[in-house]
Amino acid sequence: MKFTIEKNVLLENLNNTIKAISNKNVIPILNGIKFELTNKGLELTGSDSELTIKTFIDKKEITNIEKEGVVIIQSKYILDIIRKMPSDLINFELVDNVRIKIYTDNNQYSLNCLDAKEYPNVKLEENKYPITINGDVLKSIINQTAFAISNQELRPLLTGLNIKITGDVLECIATDSYRLSKKTIKLNNPVENDINIVIPGRNIIELEKIITDDEIVEIHIFSNKILFKYKNLIFQSNLLSGTYPNTTNLIPTEFEIKSTVNLNTYFDAVDRASLLTQGKDKNIVIMKIENNNMTINSYASEIGKVEEKLVVNSSENASINISFSSKYMLDALKVFKSENVNILLNNDVKPIILKSEDDDSLIELILPIKTY
Amino acid sequence: MKFTIEKNVLLENLNNTIKAISNKNVIPILNGIKFELTNKGLELTGSDSELTIKTFIDKKEITNIEKEGVVIIQSKYILDIIRKMPSDLINFELVDNVRIKIYTDNNQYSLNCLDAKEYPNVKLEENKYPITINGDVLKSIINQTAFAISNQELRPLLTGLNIKITGDVLECIATDSYRLSKKTIKLNNPVENDINIVIPGRNIIELEKIITDDEIVEIHIFSNKILFKYKNLIFQSNLLSGTYPNTTNLIPTEFEIKSTVNLNTYFDAVDRASLLTQGKDKNIVIMKIENNNMTINSYASEIGKVEEKLVVNSSENASINISFSSKYMLDALKVFKSENVNILLNNDVKPIILKSEDDDSLIELILPIKTY
Repeated sequence: MKFTIEKNVLLENLNNTIKAISNKNVIPILNGIKFELTNKGLELTGSDSELTIKTFIDKKEITNIEKEGVVIIQSKYILDIIRKMPSDLINFELVDNVRIKIYTDNNQYSLNCLDAKEYPNVKLEENKYPITINGDVLKSIINQTAFAISNQELRPLLTGLNIKITGDVLECIATDSYRLSKKTIKLNNPVENDINIVIPGRNIIELEKIITDDEIVEIHIFSNKILFKYKNLIFQSNLLSGTYPNTTNLIPTEFEIKSTVNLNTYFDAVDRASLLTQGKDKNIVIMKIENNNMTINSYASEIGKVEEKLVVNSSENASINISFSSKYMLDALKVFKSENVNILLNNDVKPIILKSEDDDSLIELILPIKTY
Repeated sequence: MKFTIEKNVLLENLNNTIKAISNKNVIPILNGIKFELTNKGLELTGSDSELTIKTFIDKKEITNIEKEGVVIIQSKYILDIIRKMPSDLINFELVDNVRIKIYTDNNQYSLNCLDAKEYPNVKLEENKYPITINGDVLKSIINQTAFAISNQELRPLLTGLNIKITGDVLECIATDSYRLSKKTIKLNNPVENDINIVIPGRNIIELEKIITDDEIVEIHIFSNKILFKYKNLIFQSNLLSGTYPNTTNLIPTEFEIKSTVNLNTYFDAVDRASLLTQGKDKNIVIMKIENNNMTINSYASEIGKVEEKLVVNSSENASINISFSSKYMLDALKVFKSENVNILLNNDVKPIILKSEDDDSLIELILPIKTY
């Protein structure tokens, strides 16, 4: 294997494939990136066996292909090495099949390699009729929901993102059982068979980072895995097995109280109210609505207390006193883009629902906390 | 105590005084900032008993002084509280001598306070004829030396910065016994009695952060403490007791080999050469000079090796092979501002000296590491 490539071309692709490599990996060969050079171009593969990312750099983008070959390069230092190279053009040369020389005129790294024969053969499958979705739409629905994914391994399914498709309606749901985030979009084309899958949280968050624009993403779904195609990149993740809890009944549809608040004003008030309970487990704040007057309180016995007052726009005879985790509230508020947000309530033990004023497609649910 | 003040005025002064507060503090009252309001203005004091910082906000800068008073406010949340206040004007009011209300029209913090009577009375002394030095000069000499201060408590004196003044020559020295950094400047006026003191490293680094421009700094030195006056701020630190080791003999004055290198080129080459040994204890690189050819090598058995080549400008018959810590070399190179740096050597066990090409006032010393 011998070739010359531009620093930025390699860096961009390497940056994406390396996202598949987990630092919890126990299989040594999977700490490496597979470089496979043919006269068609250079294929880079990273995998932690549950997630595989492959990118292909076309020969047109490679300055010089002198000799084909395949090798596994340790991933630990490769990004830094390439990033710090003093020249825009970088040469690669495999020596004796055990060392890769990465060099420019005045400097040279010589890295121990692993044998490509030992690299697992990950099967990347495609459907005949994939689902298609714009990159920026996909990025946005991951952004608006994935933060609510649980990081508690106790309920493994909740550590994933639930995707449900019925006809041309796609629902994306995440919950850690204290809060829930749900986004609904319309697909360009309906699917024939209903889909209900759970993608591991870590993987979907890596996908979000890779998508940078509105180019079409192809989605190929199988019983135990999902494959995304985006530009010159293939991203394949396993699916979590089991049936995601049915969350439809958790979300109330009728409400006693509706208060419309300015998003930024409300965010800042909750943020300030939560200051004194920072670092505490639940950092609880208490929200009181009395017609168009809202107060947000919080109290930490050893430090002091805080009270925020807001003028809101409430439904008639609105009156409630409800406590919640300010962290969960701030997380949920961050994903709205509208000027105002509707806070929908029933009583102090029923879920708090947040919706954008003009758009029902995003629902944020936060369970109140009893304080007495 | 009751007053109204602009957010930015208070924030700037609080930011400085809070630097004196140590998170290792065991005396509860010293976790607070003392606010003392008189009809002349507001004095803020922070202290950890070894370092005291006091700033004075003149009445002209205070929007409204309604009632004088003094109180100790917990420092933990105060900066965040002030920073996040929704209005430019912030009101303070002491209630029952135990609670301070910090409020604007729509929000109010009520914080538990500590009794000002319990706050230690730190004596801030001044000399009749202080040493004066421009703020930017003082900032720069701290910057160029303090990084070499030891963080090993085993030799307490080395955890401080040594300041020696003889006549009108000030020497600033830091060493952790593996490297040494020395900067010499001329004072505007000579001192009568020689000075040789050691300022605790943590304190001098906080002072560096506080100084932001070229305004004159007054320096008042006593047998066991030092006081800096800068703008509306007084900064008093204890001194470390004991005699700092005499370092004069450690720095060679004659050299067998001199190589002049471009600062940035050399820095980048050492940086790249050190990549593979990152995270290792000493991250050693080997530098070889053969006339005008320099190579920098490094080797990590399990990963691979790296070689950098540079063309340098060496003294006649220069020939040496010397190993050193790349971290120490990079730290030292960072404080030079010249285009080229002279590397001065004798043999592979004698200190490596770095000097700027056109200025002898800064000397960086790095001990080589034996590798065989």
